[in-house]
Amino acid sequence: MDQLFTYNQLFTFTKSIFKKIGCNETDAETATKALLSADLRGVDSHGVARLGGYVRLWEAERVNSCPEIKIIHETPSTAVVDGDRGLGLVVAPYAMQVAINKASQVGTGWVSVQNSNHFGIAGYHAMMALPHDMIGIAMTNASALVAPTFSSQRMLGTNPIAVAIPAGTEQPFVADFATTTASNGKLEILQRKEQDTPAGWVQTKTGAPSVNANELKQGGAMLPLGGDREHGSHKGYMLGSIVDIFSGVLSGANFGPWVPPFPAYVPMPENMPGNGIGHFFGAMRIDAFRSAGEFKSNMDKWIQEFKKAKTIEGFQKVIIPGEPETAMEIERMEKGISLVQSVAEDLKQLGEKFSVIF
Amino acid sequence: MDQLFTYNQLFTFTKSIFKKIGCNETDAETATKALLSADLRGVDSHGVARLGGYVRLWEAERVNSCPEIKIIHETPSTAVVDGDRGLGLVVAPYAMQVAINKASQVGTGWVSVQNSNHFGIAGYHAMMALPHDMIGIAMTNASALVAPTFSSQRMLGTNPIAVAIPAGTEQPFVADFATTTASNGKLEILQRKEQDTPAGWVQTKTGAPSVNANELKQGGAMLPLGGDREHGSHKGYMLGSIVDIFSGVLSGANFGPWVPPFPAYVPMPENMPGNGIGHFFGAMRIDAFRSAGEFKSNMDKWIQEFKKAKTIEGFQKVIIPGEPETAMEIERMEKGISLVQSVAEDLKQLGEKFSVIF
Repeated sequence: MDQLFTYNQLFTFTKSIFKKIGCNETDAETATKALLSADLRGVDSHGVARLGGYVRLWEAERVNSCPEIKIIHETPSTAVVDGDRGLGLVVAPYAMQVAINKASQVGTGWVSVQNSNHFGIAGYHAMMALPHDMIGIAMTNASALVAPTFSSQRMLGTNPIAVAIPAGTEQPFVADFATTTASNGKLEILQRKEQDTPAGWVQTKTGAPSVNANELKQGGAMLPLGGDREHGSHKGYMLGSIVDIFSGVLSGANFGPWVPPFPAYVPMPENMPGNGIGHFFGAMRIDAFRSAGEFKSNMDKWIQEFKKAKTIEGFQKVIIPGEPETAMEIERMEKGISLVQSVAEDLKQLGEKFSVIF
Repeated sequence: MDQLFTYNQLFTFTKSIFKKIGCNETDAETATKALLSADLRGVDSHGVARLGGYVRLWEAERVNSCPEIKIIHETPSTAVVDGDRGLGLVVAPYAMQVAINKASQVGTGWVSVQNSNHFGIAGYHAMMALPHDMIGIAMTNASALVAPTFSSQRMLGTNPIAVAIPAGTEQPFVADFATTTASNGKLEILQRKEQDTPAGWVQTKTGAPSVNANELKQGGAMLPLGGDREHGSHKGYMLGSIVDIFSGVLSGANFGPWVPPFPAYVPMPENMPGNGIGHFFGAMRIDAFRSAGEFKSNMDKWIQEFKKAKTIEGFQKVIIPGEPETAMEIERMEKGISLVQSVAEDLKQLGEKFSVIF
């Protein structure tokens, strides 16, 4: 049975746990907001269900809960941020704020981050730009689960890209997607339901096509967006590579097969060439290009035109990127967030361990 | 029978034609270099084969061969360029140079372009950044041939993205891809050979799956990268949309279904909300993030690691983005460029029309 919780219940609990592992008040609040934005927006795989995972990274001393996050290199429009092994949930909002500040000054800001950890959903960070009438961009590399076209070896993470674009009377355009056929979260859902995947999501450890949702546990790999060469998997591989290079190589973080894993029980890669996980953020001030009013009015026109496009029989309308997530956020903030039983039980145990009531 | 031409033969001819339609010496040279880079890099669909198409746009008064290209808005890191209805082959290098100049000054440069036309291959413009130790980014919107997920209506162009990243001893990383399952050029090749497409490339005008390479002539549409919802077509749709918004909405060009067509015989869309076609360019100075030497040495490591990844049986190695195109460029510069007979004949006729020897 799913259990229903209010946003405030989950917020209070999550923030208390982050404080218990040593986060100060501000960082605990920042991390909680970032983490729970996934639950609000319906990306259940990346939200409070992962709280225990972050705690285990701290227990394994792979996360520093009191990081001294700082800019280690900068120009008027760029910076490299060192996350000091902090939670990505804290490091990423810091770095995105640097990008926003630089955009306020010179039109755009671009920040590459090293020495960080997993940052939750990319979309949350990109959306920080919206209230400033800026376009926000967020991406991150992640531990290697994805085989490039023709490869049987995992070389890239699911490396998501998020782009948030303000509109006028319409809801903002928010794209947030893994550069694979399907995200790891979708794979986990099929694993729990003991169902097969569609063709083109995974391959075996020798690179043969597979529909086994547990293939990764046997050395298999996820596939880049496109699935196979004939359907453009080389494009998904290129996208994942660009995210890896902007996040990892440009910052001095790890890249490719050397990106540290999220599960604390998975050993760290050997001979790592950089520091921690890498992210990349961008902020572009709309009025650095044209009047924000004109832009937003044209975005409304764009959105309205796409919403009324003719649809294939059986489908009601074309979906605008971010539209279902924004609707979900409004609904869950009002009616609460339901957690599957196993997640609720994990959180209860986590609470008991740290003497925090769930 | 294919016919072989030297690069210099095609260069002299193409430049002469551009001068005949009114381009000045400099612009004719710029346009020729940009156009022929497609032939050199093996993207035959976008090269000299399209010269007649550009001429027909000029004849239809949709292209201004003597444009006064100018910056109409700017900040230290951004600009909007008005292409004055010029050839995209001339406007794009101008705008990319503005991005590079801004990156020299403040770390990065970002330029959105309105009032332009088709610009050849995106990769050429992105690669302009490489000799400056910068990362180059180029994208463009194009006339609507692609149906978003769930739509039976064409709303987006094939909207390509190119990203060029310098390396050290290795060749640069150059990704250049349409945000569709397959590019329009690949579709044209199948049309000429009278072959079917693989599943997931096109749909009929009601949105039913199809393998007919001529489906677009009957009101059908190309499909976003991913092919269908189950395989992530919503991600290809998001990518194409981002390119459209950065190129069209941010600049004040046309966007979505209103982007002008390349074939001069296709009528212009009605009630166009902007000016011409839009592009978007970016340049990021490597040493605005970290030392260029360190970065390039890590890029070499990245490339070498991917090149030696284990492969699926039957495949020799993982391909680095840009690797086949760079090899082709070296080969064709040395051994010449072969054109299919129909293209050679078209060019001969074009030469006769303008009294230029082919």
